[in-house]
Amino acid sequence: MSAGEKVTVPLRQMGERAKQAAARLAQVPGEVRRKALVAMADALDAEAGRLVDVNSQDVEAARGSLTNALIDRLTLTPSRLAGMTEGLRAIAEQPDPVGEVVEEWTRPNGLRIQKVRRPIGVIAVIYEARPNVTADVAGLCIMSGNAVILRGSSAALRTNLCVAGILVEAATVAGLPEHAVQLVEDTSRESAAELMRLKGLVDLIIPRGGPALIASIEQNATVPHIIDGDGNCHVYVDRSADPDMAAAIVVNAKTSKPSVCNAAETLLVHAGLADSWLPGVLDSLKDKGVEIRGDETVQRLWPEAVPATPQDWGTEYLDLILAVRVVEDIEQAIDHVNRWGTSNAEAIVTGDPGAAEMFTKQVDSGTVFVNASTRFSDGGQFGYGAEIGISTQKLHARGPLGLRELTSSGYVVWGTGQVRS
Amino acid sequence: MSAGEKVTVPLRQMGERAKQAAARLAQVPGEVRRKALVAMADALDAEAGRLVDVNSQDVEAARGSLTNALIDRLTLTPSRLAGMTEGLRAIAEQPDPVGEVVEEWTRPNGLRIQKVRRPIGVIAVIYEARPNVTADVAGLCIMSGNAVILRGSSAALRTNLCVAGILVEAATVAGLPEHAVQLVEDTSRESAAELMRLKGLVDLIIPRGGPALIASIEQNATVPHIIDGDGNCHVYVDRSADPDMAAAIVVNAKTSKPSVCNAAETLLVHAGLADSWLPGVLDSLKDKGVEIRGDETVQRLWPEAVPATPQDWGTEYLDLILAVRVVEDIEQAIDHVNRWGTSNAEAIVTGDPGAAEMFTKQVDSGTVFVNASTRFSDGGQFGYGAEIGISTQKLHARGPLGLRELTSSGYVVWGTGQVRS
Repeated sequence: MSAGEKVTVPLRQMGERAKQAAARLAQVPGEVRRKALVAMADALDAEAGRLVDVNSQDVEAARGSLTNALIDRLTLTPSRLAGMTEGLRAIAEQPDPVGEVVEEWTRPNGLRIQKVRRPIGVIAVIYEARPNVTADVAGLCIMSGNAVILRGSSAALRTNLCVAGILVEAATVAGLPEHAVQLVEDTSRESAAELMRLKGLVDLIIPRGGPALIASIEQNATVPHIIDGDGNCHVYVDRSADPDMAAAIVVNAKTSKPSVCNAAETLLVHAGLADSWLPGVLDSLKDKGVEIRGDETVQRLWPEAVPATPQDWGTEYLDLILAVRVVEDIEQAIDHVNRWGTSNAEAIVTGDPGAAEMFTKQVDSGTVFVNASTRFSDGGQFGYGAEIGISTQKLHARGPLGLRELTSSGYVVWGTGQVRS
Repeated sequence: MSAGEKVTVPLRQMGERAKQAAARLAQVPGEVRRKALVAMADALDAEAGRLVDVNSQDVEAARGSLTNALIDRLTLTPSRLAGMTEGLRAIAEQPDPVGEVVEEWTRPNGLRIQKVRRPIGVIAVIYEARPNVTADVAGLCIMSGNAVILRGSSAALRTNLCVAGILVEAATVAGLPEHAVQLVEDTSRESAAELMRLKGLVDLIIPRGGPALIASIEQNATVPHIIDGDGNCHVYVDRSADPDMAAAIVVNAKTSKPSVCNAAETLLVHAGLADSWLPGVLDSLKDKGVEIRGDETVQRLWPEAVPATPQDWGTEYLDLILAVRVVEDIEQAIDHVNRWGTSNAEAIVTGDPGAAEMFTKQVDSGTVFVNASTRFSDGGQFGYGAEIGISTQKLHARGPLGLRELTSSGYVVWGTGQVRS
């Protein structure tokens, strides 16, 4: 694709082009990939006016059909654009994962075995309205030596075409192979389904979207995938917690950005702390507009609470609603999290190192925080420059996905003529 | 399951038991898991006579219905039994992967981020006649903190029941949770298909079998899987190769055990070496009973060669047959391997460090050997004690699978009250 090109390329052909580009890109030195990312950032900065202008056309067209929240996610402001280019520059400063020797040992027969990181090949990402994902994903894939096929939503198509066109031109001038970055213009469900089945051409597909997209991947995909799943995140406040720290973390985890997957949805409180601590923190949450759904103990301690049902324990509200339960001990908290959680991010607030150790060892989740907000479950906050998603699965990678998680590994074994007896 | 128990447990119930066992096993200290493996090895040694006896019943029953090669694989000799117990002891000496901090860094806001290995949970393995797999897989899964569901073949059922019964009893006495190791007694296709679909109970399934089993996994599995695939392995002899070393490696890779996946199936020879070197090595291979299928150049240099067709390049013979092609240069060799290979193991024989670097960087395979036989692509040869399979896929792990490859990872983040602005 070049900027402004209008001919729609069939998906299979895009896959074949991507596969060829991936083979070449895997051989491009890290310095060239790094410089290409900086050139991509420079080009987006230089075209900021045009980008904001094109984006306003998407936003205008979406008014009436999208919710205000989705309109907000679609909108590209100058500061969000600056965030995109900062992300690209931050990715360019990460250590190059390609060729990294992860482990190395020598066998008694003299064979020297190296486990080495290699690019995965062709990565496809299906995502929704945020246009910044186009730049984040392109940057992460290129820096990890992978060709990428981007498939955004119809609402953001003008913006994505403009962003991708600028990125592609800058990348090509900087010496990257043609078709290292491609954007799918057909935003139909059929094109998404076809992309999931391009086995042999696409090596990995990452769905960034709601439950319907995840279900479609699980039903239809023949291409290997990493699930970027729901975030039914928990904060457990232990008996030994510092009350002020606990209140600050709970309020932050619930209210700083309720619409995202790392926001807390359930608060679990140790019974030994509930009487003294819970009513105050629930007052603070109410002041911030949060609706509280509590178990019987919570209702007794704070009568304004709406009675919670088991459905509340399993719901990712993505809204100013918090389920609250008082637990007898840390074991009950751990059982609750492992039963209802979605393996995205959980936190314990505690002053007891034993409790911290127990919680971090027994809670089955992508990221377990001790005395910090779940809101830090994020590639940028981990120092990855950006993220391509948060894995909630166990194979390959869990938690925020950075450059290293976008590589495969293989063995290189150095001998001096060894044969096996 | 306890030794001698005869009631067949429904698969779903086995999955539920395994899931509970996995949660407990993940908390068992490495020392206890280690001692359990040694106790399992001791128990097998103590029961060697009974095991060989029971195995002879399987072997008798299989005569007439299985090929001699399969009968051989099924047979448990005292020396093979010693290999099984040595494998368990070797696994017990491996570093414990559970809890290993793989990476660790501190963010500017003081958050300390650790990437930590954790068990995967419940691993199911479907495998064929070799009874040693029962012990290898049980040992690797337990040492990596995973519960395991073993599903062997009908021909080996008496032997597998006996081996598993001994292992389970020893493991339980040594303090491992009940149901950490279970053997499926129903060896029908339907039970295999059901096992592949126990999503939520089984966390990973590894098929160790032929193309029909792999196809069934790819069609039916809802459980995440690691493909232990074909081995269409290549040896490329570069122009700069030491002729004697090259001959020794080619003969070893083809003839030392032709029936296994790390045996070489295609020899690629640089045109600059073919005239002087190829006829002699083909004579040696012929002396060892190998049929040569060659391209036109090979037929000219060694007229006894059968003409090779493109189908030969794509065939895993698992037999004393070798496809041979003369290539113009290393690029042509790399293209051939990447087109026809199955990403299991490939070797280059060369005296040129530049050629070695190029081959190891550009060949897309699980293990690339420099000046060594492909036959070393094996968990035992890598020092893993045993292997649960050889992955030919890119996600999660490639090449021989040892303890580390049987773990997942997650993040633990240590804070002092950090919240996100």
